[in-house]
Amino acid sequence: MVVIDELIERAQAASVSFNNGNLPAPPARRVAIVTCMDARIDVHAIFGLQPGDVHVIRNAGGAVTDDAVRSLAISQRLLGTEEIMVMHHTDCGMTSFSGEDFARQLQDETGIRPGWAVETFTDVEGDVRQSLARIHASPFLGRKDAVRGFVYDVGTGRVDEVRP
Amino acid sequence: MVVIDELIERAQAASVSFNNGNLPAPPARRVAIVTCMDARIDVHAIFGLQPGDVHVIRNAGGAVTDDAVRSLAISQRLLGTEEIMVMHHTDCGMTSFSGEDFARQLQDETGIRPGWAVETFTDVEGDVRQSLARIHASPFLGRKDAVRGFVYDVGTGRVDEVRP
Repeated sequence: MVVIDELIERAQAASVSFNNGNLPAPPARRVAIVTCMDARIDVHAIFGLQPGDVHVIRNAGGAVTDDAVRSLAISQRLLGTEEIMVMHHTDCGMTSFSGEDFARQLQDETGIRPGWAVETFTDVEGDVRQSLARIHASPFLGRKDAVRGFVYDVGTGRVDEVRP
Repeated sequence: MVVIDELIERAQAASVSFNNGNLPAPPARRVAIVTCMDARIDVHAIFGLQPGDVHVIRNAGGAVTDDAVRSLAISQRLLGTEEIMVMHHTDCGMTSFSGEDFARQLQDETGIRPGWAVETFTDVEGDVRQSLARIHASPFLGRKDAVRGFVYDVGTGRVDEVRP
């Protein structure tokens, strides 16, 4: 049995006692969180969140890519969020290799160079600041009063703010 | 107090009893899940997951954008995942407006047309199939034996597979 089948069985068992069926789409806490896909990050557990509370946008690195900006623009303009958290983390895979090497490996194996930046980085706090700068530079995001950056420590569970 | 400050206080309080400090970066269950940023989706709660189990990639709609492919390529090639779940959901905001209208609204307000597709859709099952097709078409993803699509029902908590 593939793992996916096991996960689906668990979801069906849990749905028997499901009681969040009347939540609206707009996030109750009006926050959007951008963070890494890293397996050690359970956003709801870290921040004590309930279903319906926040938008969660995740990708490799928690990068503020064009796709993250697309999601944030929809989050703010159509679903009413007002605050943005960007959270990177310690021991991130994106600091362990070079984007140039990865792109070259893809090209060597497939004959095709990816049309996207790999978004690796070396300095986690510096990359949080760079991510916040991308949000502030975007013409498509209207609410920028509460845009804050953080680093999650996967070794201690602490969330520390990155000062501008 | 902005909401972010409240979330950070909760995270610091929870970190006192944190006991997941020794988990490795590669996901233990070797699964990557692509889903929507929707506030009603708590991936870990739905599938009974623990920190360290799976990669979670989320954006507006759970679209398999170039950025999602970037994340999946890193997930498979550098962090060893072998299965991919794509999960859209009922009552998705991305079915409630037109991408063309949204792009025009952005252009009217900012003077700039976004360089990205908005990724709206009308048929949730059809868009799951379209998302799976993007994965199968990508030259950068090597493991495609277990690529499966689902719809999460936000009204009942059920997860139903979309047949090809």
